[in-house]
Amino acid sequence: MDDRATPLLSIGVIKPLDGDQRSRIEAAAPGARLTVFDTEDELDDRLSELDVLAGFLSEDRLPKAGKLKWLHSWMAGPDTQLYPAFAATDVAFTCSKGNGAVPLAEHAIMLMLMLNRNALRWIKAQQDHAWDRFTHGELSGLTVGIIGTGHSGQDLALKAKAFHMRVLGVRRQASGMKNFDAVYAQADIDAMLPLCDFVVVTAPLTAQTRDMLGEAQFRAMKPSAHYICLSRGGIANDLALLKALNEGWIAGAGLDAHSQEPLPAQSPFWTAPNTIITPHNGATSHKTPERGLDMFVDNLTRFVKGVELFNVVDKEQGY
Amino acid sequence: MDDRATPLLSIGVIKPLDGDQRSRIEAAAPGARLTVFDTEDELDDRLSELDVLAGFLSEDRLPKAGKLKWLHSWMAGPDTQLYPAFAATDVAFTCSKGNGAVPLAEHAIMLMLMLNRNALRWIKAQQDHAWDRFTHGELSGLTVGIIGTGHSGQDLALKAKAFHMRVLGVRRQASGMKNFDAVYAQADIDAMLPLCDFVVVTAPLTAQTRDMLGEAQFRAMKPSAHYICLSRGGIANDLALLKALNEGWIAGAGLDAHSQEPLPAQSPFWTAPNTIITPHNGATSHKTPERGLDMFVDNLTRFVKGVELFNVVDKEQGY
Repeated sequence: MDDRATPLLSIGVIKPLDGDQRSRIEAAAPGARLTVFDTEDELDDRLSELDVLAGFLSEDRLPKAGKLKWLHSWMAGPDTQLYPAFAATDVAFTCSKGNGAVPLAEHAIMLMLMLNRNALRWIKAQQDHAWDRFTHGELSGLTVGIIGTGHSGQDLALKAKAFHMRVLGVRRQASGMKNFDAVYAQADIDAMLPLCDFVVVTAPLTAQTRDMLGEAQFRAMKPSAHYICLSRGGIANDLALLKALNEGWIAGAGLDAHSQEPLPAQSPFWTAPNTIITPHNGATSHKTPERGLDMFVDNLTRFVKGVELFNVVDKEQGY
Repeated sequence: MDDRATPLLSIGVIKPLDGDQRSRIEAAAPGARLTVFDTEDELDDRLSELDVLAGFLSEDRLPKAGKLKWLHSWMAGPDTQLYPAFAATDVAFTCSKGNGAVPLAEHAIMLMLMLNRNALRWIKAQQDHAWDRFTHGELSGLTVGIIGTGHSGQDLALKAKAFHMRVLGVRRQASGMKNFDAVYAQADIDAMLPLCDFVVVTAPLTAQTRDMLGEAQFRAMKPSAHYICLSRGGIANDLALLKALNEGWIAGAGLDAHSQEPLPAQSPFWTAPNTIITPHNGATSHKTPERGLDMFVDNLTRFVKGVELFNVVDKEQGY
């Protein structure tokens, strides 16, 4: 191959890659020039020549990406990429939704079990070498309301059914869905909340979902209910959630996603009653990077062939 | 009704009962005399007249139970009741197996998730208000080997399938079973152990299962494998298990059942590496007592009608 020839396609990838991963990308786009960047800051010199970028493109760099035809995000939730200037371009935009769905649903079940059984009491007792038996709950027979019926919500519904739970869902429009006993339209969420022992948020952060859980919604939940947030902080209003926890409107929470990340050391959520905090870490298993690469490689194959991409983000809807 | 008449049946129940629970038992055996004991020690004066006892009967009291026709145990595992003198009687013996199956399987999944994700690291980080993100495992794609394919094992298999796991089982004889990819005979357990990422014990403690997991079995497991014990200590040899944990033959353990209970404060298990200890507490949910009463009432109805009892323990086999 003549290396002075203009490459058919210039692809930039912001992600450390091993040789095998590089080869897989190159095989998906024969003849393309692949440039691997460790961080976004390394983009600057090369951005103007890229046709394809997998990674994040900040607003200040956007004007330099004059040739960009397709941007792929390694993240499941594309909200941070969708600033108005980018949303206004006609660059195709795909994300990695579905990549973290299974480990995220696992995290949800772990948090639900730990809260339902008061696992922290056992952990404390173990530190004290104390045989502290107590009566706890069981998930069986309880009701979970899943806000967001995408990949994560669907896998969580499957799991909740195996825990003999009643499974309710919330999406934009009501509909029947496998493993859900009922799916409510977002407009009807207040009818669902009083039925739930767990309210689990797996929805993307969009103009429609921001602040959808406020004081009225937390007051509508059972005092015995637990709130679990897996996808994005900000869907619940932080002040309302804190009030609900501190004043006992609900029994507790499991929070993996937070409106401010990293959660500041002085955040009141760290010490909120009956609350388990994890650092937006539910979906980041050993398998996530490889599965994410699979998604990009599959889409790159489609891009090269001119076939419709999958996981295309609707820039208006925000997911 | 003439209260001087000899009652048809004299029933003793060792368990605090509320009025509704008493009524349910009385309705199942019309005309019977029901005596409720708070503890076994209160039995002595009345034991000789009982036809039916629900509770535990110790060896020293057995000779006084001359009229006893049926003993029901509130426990799922009847091993402590099966001392030779009782096993030699022809008193019908039923147990509460199945009562704790669902909450026990929930406990198993919680321990598996907490070990697989290193949840204790998040709990520690929360105490320090520290944003400590790390890469962890996911259950999806892993293999669980369930020793004991009774009620708990079957419910765990159902749940493990919803976690996209490969599910192997061990029972006395190999066979096909729903939600199990393969079921091995106990004699072939050494062929299964090297395949497992989790080995979970839900089997009863019997002459056949005692010490079935020794040094050879723990050495056969993957160094990345976790051992979970839900049913009875003593199925794994304690010394072998401790060696396996301390010397890294396996990655860690979740232990709810212990060979000595309460686990003494000086037990080395409290501080064994990567080990979560719970106080034989997995199955004791809020719903367990009521479900246990349901089982006894159902069986009492059968007993009064002369119909075959369910959950009859084979005194030879020990379960």
